[in-house]
Amino acid sequence: MDEKIQLAHGGGGKLSARLIKDEILSRFGNGPLRNLPDAAELPLNAEKIIYSTDSFVVSPYFFPGGNIGELAVYGTVNDVCVAGGRPQWLSLALIIEEGFPLDNLRRILDSTAEAAKRCGVTIVTGDTKVVQKGNCDGIYMNTSGIGVKVAGLELGRQRIKPGDAVIVSGTIGEHGFAVLAARNGIRTGEGLISDCGPLNGLLEQAVPFGDKVKFMRDPTRGGVAAVLNEIVEGMEFGIELKQNAVPVSEGVRSVSEMLGIDPLNVACEGRMILICDQSAAEGILSGFRSLPEGRGACVIGTAGGTAGKVTMKTITGVSRLIDLPSGELLPRIC
Amino acid sequence: MDEKIQLAHGGGGKLSARLIKDEILSRFGNGPLRNLPDAAELPLNAEKIIYSTDSFVVSPYFFPGGNIGELAVYGTVNDVCVAGGRPQWLSLALIIEEGFPLDNLRRILDSTAEAAKRCGVTIVTGDTKVVQKGNCDGIYMNTSGIGVKVAGLELGRQRIKPGDAVIVSGTIGEHGFAVLAARNGIRTGEGLISDCGPLNGLLEQAVPFGDKVKFMRDPTRGGVAAVLNEIVEGMEFGIELKQNAVPVSEGVRSVSEMLGIDPLNVACEGRMILICDQSAAEGILSGFRSLPEGRGACVIGTAGGTAGKVTMKTITGVSRLIDLPSGELLPRIC
Repeated sequence: MDEKIQLAHGGGGKLSARLIKDEILSRFGNGPLRNLPDAAELPLNAEKIIYSTDSFVVSPYFFPGGNIGELAVYGTVNDVCVAGGRPQWLSLALIIEEGFPLDNLRRILDSTAEAAKRCGVTIVTGDTKVVQKGNCDGIYMNTSGIGVKVAGLELGRQRIKPGDAVIVSGTIGEHGFAVLAARNGIRTGEGLISDCGPLNGLLEQAVPFGDKVKFMRDPTRGGVAAVLNEIVEGMEFGIELKQNAVPVSEGVRSVSEMLGIDPLNVACEGRMILICDQSAAEGILSGFRSLPEGRGACVIGTAGGTAGKVTMKTITGVSRLIDLPSGELLPRIC
Repeated sequence: MDEKIQLAHGGGGKLSARLIKDEILSRFGNGPLRNLPDAAELPLNAEKIIYSTDSFVVSPYFFPGGNIGELAVYGTVNDVCVAGGRPQWLSLALIIEEGFPLDNLRRILDSTAEAAKRCGVTIVTGDTKVVQKGNCDGIYMNTSGIGVKVAGLELGRQRIKPGDAVIVSGTIGEHGFAVLAARNGIRTGEGLISDCGPLNGLLEQAVPFGDKVKFMRDPTRGGVAAVLNEIVEGMEFGIELKQNAVPVSEGVRSVSEMLGIDPLNVACEGRMILICDQSAAEGILSGFRSLPEGRGACVIGTAGGTAGKVTMKTITGVSRLIDLPSGELLPRIC
C-alpha cells in the first residue's frame, strides 16, 4: 500500500498519536521515550536533567501577540517546566528560505533574545541552514532545552487519584484562534491575541506544594481536550469537567462560534494544566493568580467519573463526552 | 535597504560567517556561544556537559552511502565528540511534507535507530510536525545531543603551537561530492559514496593522549579549508599543508576535476581534523588506523607559516593560499 503522510499526522489528534506510536515508539520507545513525555528526565550523577525539543513551523510567522521567535523559546521552556525542570540552556536551529527578508529575520531574532532573557535561559548552541526558494515557508525554527529537575516534585499521571483538582492557569485557546484568525483574515477586534508566554513563573508557584502536585502539562497541539484524554487513557477513572468552569475569553468565544471549533481542542502556548491534591488547590490558585500570566487561573474539574473518559457535567447532571480531536483542525499553529 | 537571505548565507563560506556574526553573535554571543563552537561546554555541578544541535536539509534525502536519518545522528554525535564529549542522549525533531511516502519515513527512521545504536546514544525526546505540500522538500530533521565531557581533554585553537601536527582521519570530500553527484545525476562508478559515519571511536583513540591533543573538529560545511581557516583567523602563525599529503580518493578526484571544485572545500560527514603535539602524532595515527573509519588517517600539515593563513607548500617551495570558500558551492549537503 502506498501510504502517504497527511497534514493530520502532525495535528495532535488521533492520526498523530498513531504515527508516533507506530513509527517512533516502535523504534525508540525502550528508553525515556517510553511514556512519550514532552520532555525526558535523565540521570546525570546526583542531578536529574530535563531535556526537550520542538520544531516550530507556525504560519504566519508573525501573528497577533507574538512571532515564531518567541514561540520557539516559550514552547521548549514550557515543556521543560511542566516536566518539573528549571530551564537553563537552549539550542536554536534555523531553516530559512532563500529570499527571506533579512529585516524579518532580525525582528524574529530580537524576539527570540528577549524571550530567552525573560525566561532566564541562555541560548548556547545553534545552527543555520538556508534552502532554495519554495522549499520552506519563510522560516522554521527548532529549539531544544535543558533544565535541572526541581527536587521534591514527582510528576506523572499515575500519581493522580480520584478527587484531585484539575486547574488551568488562564483562558484557553487564544494562541490557536489568534493564529487561525491571522491566517484567514478573520477580524477579531482587539481582544484576541496569542497567549504565547513562559510558564517558569507558574512552576515556581507550584514548587512549595511538593508532592501534592501530581501532574503538569501545557495544552498545546490538540488543546486541553488532548492533554486530558492522554491523562485518562487506560485509567480506572476519568476526569469530569464542570460546565462553564473552563475559562474562555470573549474573543475566543466569538471566533469559536463563527468557525464551530470547540476551544477545548485549540492550542494554548502560555497556559498550564496542573492536577493536585484538593488540599493544595486553593494555595496553588492563589499563587498562580499573583502573577500576570496566571491571573485567570481556576479549577475546571476533578479526577473521577467514567473510567478512561473525559466528560463535562452539566447543571442538570447530564455528561457530555470530551473526545480526543480527530482530523486536522488547525495545521501549523506552532 | 531590502536585503534578503541568499543560499550562500547557509553554505559555510564567507556570507554564512557574516550572517552568524552580525545576527547571531550580536544577540546571543555573551555566553557559551561567544567563540561559536560546534558544541557548548556547560557546567553542571561537578560534571561538564557538551551540548550541540544541527538541522538537516540534505537533498536528496537518500544519497549514495546513507540517508538523512543516519546523517542526523552522526552529525550531532560528531559535533559532541569533537568538543571532547562522549555522546549520550539525542533529541529528534521531524518536519515532514504532506504527501511524503510513509515507506520513505520508515526507511529513514530505521537508519536513524541503527545509527543511534552504533554510536551508543539514546533518542530520548522528539517532535513531529507536518507542513502542507510545497512547504518543505520531503523531510527535514533536527537533532540535538548531550554528552559528558571527557576528563583530561582540553580542546581549543588557542592551545595550538607552531610545529603541532595536523591530522585528518581519512580521505576528504566523499560526502559532499556523493550528494552532489546524486543530485545532478553524475555517474561516478562504484567508488564514490558518502563517508557519513560516527567519530566516537576516533575520540576514544585520542583520549589516552590527554593534553597533547589540542583541537578536534569535523570538516562539514565548507570542508577542510573552512575548518583550518577558522583555526588560524587572527593567529600569529598559520597552518601549512603539504602538497599531495591530503588524502583524496579516486572517485572524489574525478568528480572534483569534472566540476572544478577543490575537495578541500567539500564537506565530510565522518572525518576528523585533529591537531596535536608532534610527539603524539604517530601514536594517534596508529590508533586511528586501527579502526575501519580511521584507516586512511594521515598527517596533512603542521601549524606554522604565514600568520592567519592556510597555505599549501609545494615540493618546489612555492606556497599556495587556501582561502575560505566564498559563495554557495554546495547547497544542502547536510
